[in-house]
Amino acid sequence: MKTGAPPRRPPIRHCRECGAPTAYRVPDDGDTRQRAICSACGTIHYENPLNVVGTLPVLGERVLLCQRNIEPRWGKWTLPAGFMELEETTAQGALRETDEEAGAQVTLGPLFSLLNVPSVGQVHLFYLATLHSDRFNPGHETIEARLFSEDEIPWEQIAFRTVRATLERYFADRRTGHFGVHCIDIV
Amino acid sequence: MKTGAPPRRPPIRHCRECGAPTAYRVPDDGDTRQRAICSACGTIHYENPLNVVGTLPVLGERVLLCQRNIEPRWGKWTLPAGFMELEETTAQGALRETDEEAGAQVTLGPLFSLLNVPSVGQVHLFYLATLHSDRFNPGHETIEARLFSEDEIPWEQIAFRTVRATLERYFADRRTGHFGVHCIDIV
Ligand SMILES: [Zn+2]
Ligand SMILES: [Zn+2]
Repeated sequence: MKTGAPPRRPPIRHCRECGAPTAYRVPDDGDTRQRAICSACGTIHYENPLNVVGTLPVLGERVLLCQRNIEPRWGKWTLPAGFMELEETTAQGALRETDEEAGAQVTLGPLFSLLNVPSVGQVHLFYLATLHSDRFNPGHETIEARLFSEDEIPWEQIAFRTVRATLERYFADRRTGHFGVHCIDIV
Repeated sequence: MKTGAPPRRPPIRHCRECGAPTAYRVPDDGDTRQRAICSACGTIHYENPLNVVGTLPVLGERVLLCQRNIEPRWGKWTLPAGFMELEETTAQGALRETDEEAGAQVTLGPLFSLLNVPSVGQVHLFYLATLHSDRFNPGHETIEARLFSEDEIPWEQIAFRTVRATLERYFADRRTGHFGVHCIDIV
């Protein structure tokens, strides 16, 4: 989970087209929200939520977690996930992050959780995934990638509430044998 | 469905922080993609996919479509949907767009479709919704909001492939009586 976008976004101070200063006001095109509008060329700058995409990689009874080597939450454990990029699908992004952060090869399963985090303008999407092996090759963002059975999960050391909520639903679903798609608001 | 963001995005030419010119190159922080980086202050500008959120409003056997009063696809029919905004959830955004575009009051149901459109950097999310009545009060983006039974759907006049795919899955699911969550890539 890269830290490219800060949780509270700084205002847009200058126009992306011409560099002149912007001011926040409601455009006169029927819009109802304040946008950063260029004082020189009139370009309207929209700011919208970001998607974070990842996987819940499973090998038998165990799930894969990554210990973060970056801020925020250095040293805490997370599922492999990161910001979705242009020119990829949510599933492709989830696979890419799983490779980048854990060096784990997986077969992607169904969408498992969609978590809204409006306080930071993010939507997190996790897919179930089946690991091909227990050999990992984590990238520079990860201290260690390790498999955990349910009773080994470091619940007090989970990096993000969306990861905790996804893991909780996974183990609950596994007990019932039926895996749904979980839509959760983190407020 | 507002047209705030163009389908092909123009490059970021100037820094949002200081207004100086940017250049596209790969940052030296471990990133692997080209980003617009400020030549003066070094700010890295990330560009990510946008979410479009909407509903599939149902009243008995009929579904609600809106005839677009805006470009692109003026005069074509769509489900109420638009760009997700900051400080709202996907579900709240879907409800907001349903009110803004159709003036329709609904009770939101489950997530029904998640459609990736990587060619334009968008993810579309549609929720099932139950209409409270057949009285609508469409906004300025809509010529007309009208209920259609399955055999009345103007399939050749549907504005977007994501809307068509969602409607197709809905009528197929209705025949089976089981409504799933459909993840679809529009390539
Ligand atoms: Zn400008
Ligand atoms: Zn700058």
